[in-house]
This record gives sequence, C-alpha cells and structure tokens, in this order.
Amino acid sequence: METEKFSHHISRRFNEELEHVRSEVLRMGGMVQQHLDVAIQAIVAADSELGLRIAAEDHRVNRMEVAIDEECTRILATRSPTAADLRLVIAVIKTITDLERIGDEAQKIATLASRLTVDAHADDEHRQVQVMAGQVQEMLRNALDAFSRVDAGDALAVVEADRLVDEQYDMIARRCITLMMEDPRSIQRFLDVTWVARALERIGDHAKNISEYVIYLVHGKDIRHVGIDAVREKIGLV
Amino acid sequence: METEKFSHHISRRFNEELEHVRSEVLRMGGMVQQHLDVAIQAIVAADSELGLRIAAEDHRVNRMEVAIDEECTRILATRSPTAADLRLVIAVIKTITDLERIGDEAQKIATLASRLTVDAHADDEHRQVQVMAGQVQEMLRNALDAFSRVDAGDALAVVEADRLVDEQYDMIARRCITLMMEDPRSIQRFLDVTWVARALERIGDHAKNISEYVIYLVHGKDIRHVGIDAVREKIGLV
Repeated sequence: METEKFSHHISRRFNEELEHVRSEVLRMGGMVQQHLDVAIQAIVAADSELGLRIAAEDHRVNRMEVAIDEECTRILATRSPTAADLRLVIAVIKTITDLERIGDEAQKIATLASRLTVDAHADDEHRQVQVMAGQVQEMLRNALDAFSRVDAGDALAVVEADRLVDEQYDMIARRCITLMMEDPRSIQRFLDVTWVARALERIGDHAKNISEYVIYLVHGKDIRHVGIDAVREKIGLV
Repeated sequence: METEKFSHHISRRFNEELEHVRSEVLRMGGMVQQHLDVAIQAIVAADSELGLRIAAEDHRVNRMEVAIDEECTRILATRSPTAADLRLVIAVIKTITDLERIGDEAQKIATLASRLTVDAHADDEHRQVQVMAGQVQEMLRNALDAFSRVDAGDALAVVEADRLVDEQYDMIARRCITLMMEDPRSIQRFLDVTWVARALERIGDHAKNISEYVIYLVHGKDIRHVGIDAVREKIGLV
C-alpha cells in the first residue's frame, strides 16, 4: 500500500483517521463488487432469488455511504486538511456517491435479469450482455485497485476501457431493436435485455468517474470533460 | 436572501468567497435550466437545430463545474470552514455534479426529441411526455429556489414531487410497450419516447438530490435513504 503520501503528519491520530476512511471506501467497494457479481450471476443463472438478496443487502451499502460521508465532514471540520490530504477527503466524498449508485444499478440488473432469463439463455444477445458484464466487472475491479494503490496510470486505463463498454452497449441496443421488429412478441424481452445493458453501461461510467478521482488524487488535476490524449499529457504519460 | 447564516465571519473576504460560490452555483443552475427549456422546446417544436445548440453550449456548463469545484477546494484548504460554512461548501461540491448531469440529460433529450417529432405531434404519449417535462422543469426550478433561499421546507416539497414524476414515467413506459406491440413499425419511435421520458425521470432524481443537499445544509442531517415521513420528523416538520 502506497500510503506514505498521506503519512507525514505530526498527529498519528490524524493519519489513522485518513487510513480508516480509505479502508472503509475499499470495504464499501468490496460490498458493491459483490452485489455486481450476484447481479451478473442472475443474468447467467436465471435465479430470481438473487435480486431479492441484493435488495435485502442494499441498505448496508447506503449506511456505509452516510457513515463515510459523515467521517469525511468531521475530518474536514476538525483537521483542516490541505494538499494531498484534502484531495483524498474530497475524492472519497465523490467516490462513495458513485459506489452507492453502482449498488443501485446492480439491484436493477438482478431484478430485470431474473425476469428475462426464462427463455433467453441460448441466444446471441444474452451472450453479448455477458461479455459486457465481464468488461464492466473488470473496470470496477481495476478502478478500486487503482484507488487502493493510488495509481494514476491504472486509473487512466479504466477511463480508456469505458469506450469499449459504450461501444458494446450501442451494439446490443441496436441489435435488440432489430430483433423486436422481427418478432413483436419478443419486445418485452429485448427491452429487458436493453435495460440490463444500459445499467451495465452506467456502472462503467461510475467506475470511470472513480478512476478520474484517483487521477485527481495523485495529480491534483481535474480531468473531467477532457479528452484522453489531453489527460495523458496533463498527467505526464506522453 | 437568507445569507445571514453564513455571514458571521471576522474575515469579510471569506464571506465574499462563500457568497461568490453560492451565486456561481445559481448561475450554473440558470444555465442548466435554460438547456432543459431548450430541450423541452425540441420535444414540442420538432426543431432539430435545438439539440445542436445545447451541445455547443454544454462545455460552458462543464467549465463552470470544474471552476466551482476548484474554488471549493481552495476555500477548504485556505479557510478551514466549520459548521454551516463547511456544510455549504460540501453541499456545493455535490450540487454541481448533479447540475452537470442534468445538462447531459437535457442534451440527450434534445437530440432524441428532434428525431421523434416528425410524425408524433398529435398522439397521446407525446402529450404525456410534455406533462412530465413540465413537472420536471418545476422540480428543478423549485430545487434551485430552495438552494437560493436555503429553505428546507421547499426542498422537502421537491423530494416529495419526485414520486409523481416516477409514476408518470412508469405510465409512459408501460403504454409505449403496448403501442410497440400493437404496431411493430412504431418500435423505434416509442423507444425514443421512452428514452426521453427516462431522461426526464433522471433529471427529476437530480433535482431531488439537490433538494436533499439543501436540507442537509439547513439541518446538518443526512436524509438520503430515509423515507419521507422520517425526514419530516428529522427536520421537525411534524
């Protein structure tokens, strides 16, 4: 763990607080990852119980968001952090919002997936959604790894991967429209497939957001709304 | 303007900084409102130029988000705000994220709307979307008013209004599926209508988020993930 950057404090207590907030984010991230895994299992296995399982657990994610948010506010009020410490606290406040929303999307996926799997197992769209699910799972894992290791290069790779996920989504959505037109009885099903793909696409966006906060954390530069090449230049990767 | 709460500072300069950040948020809000108005005009008027107009302006919204964010970070670093001042800065950091996303959704709506209006003017779904657009417009206006006047009661009314918008969305989405099944040639069109309604529903969510930050700003209580009645109780409205 590269935590030295946040460790030059006179107050050992302050160090511990920052370290605690970081590890809580990773714990929350682990929980959300698990929910995404379960949601994807629901796509693959046609198990309608899985959605209920995530729904029952979602309040724990919400509670963590509120708790970490409060801890950050307390640190800001009592420690008046500056420089890298301040950036860490701000990055955490933003990251947990995205993690919470990933949890919501996972729940949505699980609910939809259990409905659509009855007769959808074998077809091509279903396989494409599974491919997309794997891509998104990896993006989230890498985003959390980049946060954990405070690694801007890895974070940038996640930002770049988001384009592939967007392309995959566009392809699935277009194919679904064609299939609905070919067989109107399949409309509800391919709408559901489209919604699942859409939720996965949004999770990709959130993983990208988290990675952007990591880059901000390391370089103190705001890279939102900037093209990839400009980012590479800004953080000195060209 | 109820700004006394933020005005008990020895440093007049600090007051001015907080006041500036507040007014910048309202300016950004006004810009986003305008984009939403144009997007809704695109639904009503079938004008494909309108989408392009928002797209051309969207970078200004993005630039404002980054600038306000940087100003907040600077205030946190140099002024070490506490209590209500700290809550204001945190609320601002969160609010601008939601405003920026409302801008994105408005752009999406304008692009879709210009495509769908060619032969869709007279039908019932189109009218229902317009009703929903009006509701969402009002939610955003009221959320920004509540932020401007720091009024938790008005903010709570926005949170409550979101339920109606969600219901309207569900109704439109269900109707669209039925219509697609009745006439497969209309699939693309009613999908577009669904996507527009979906984007409006998300704007409603963002307006609700902003209102929740206002309540947090006033009462210092985190009301996310809490039912309306519990919120009323928490902020002393029962």
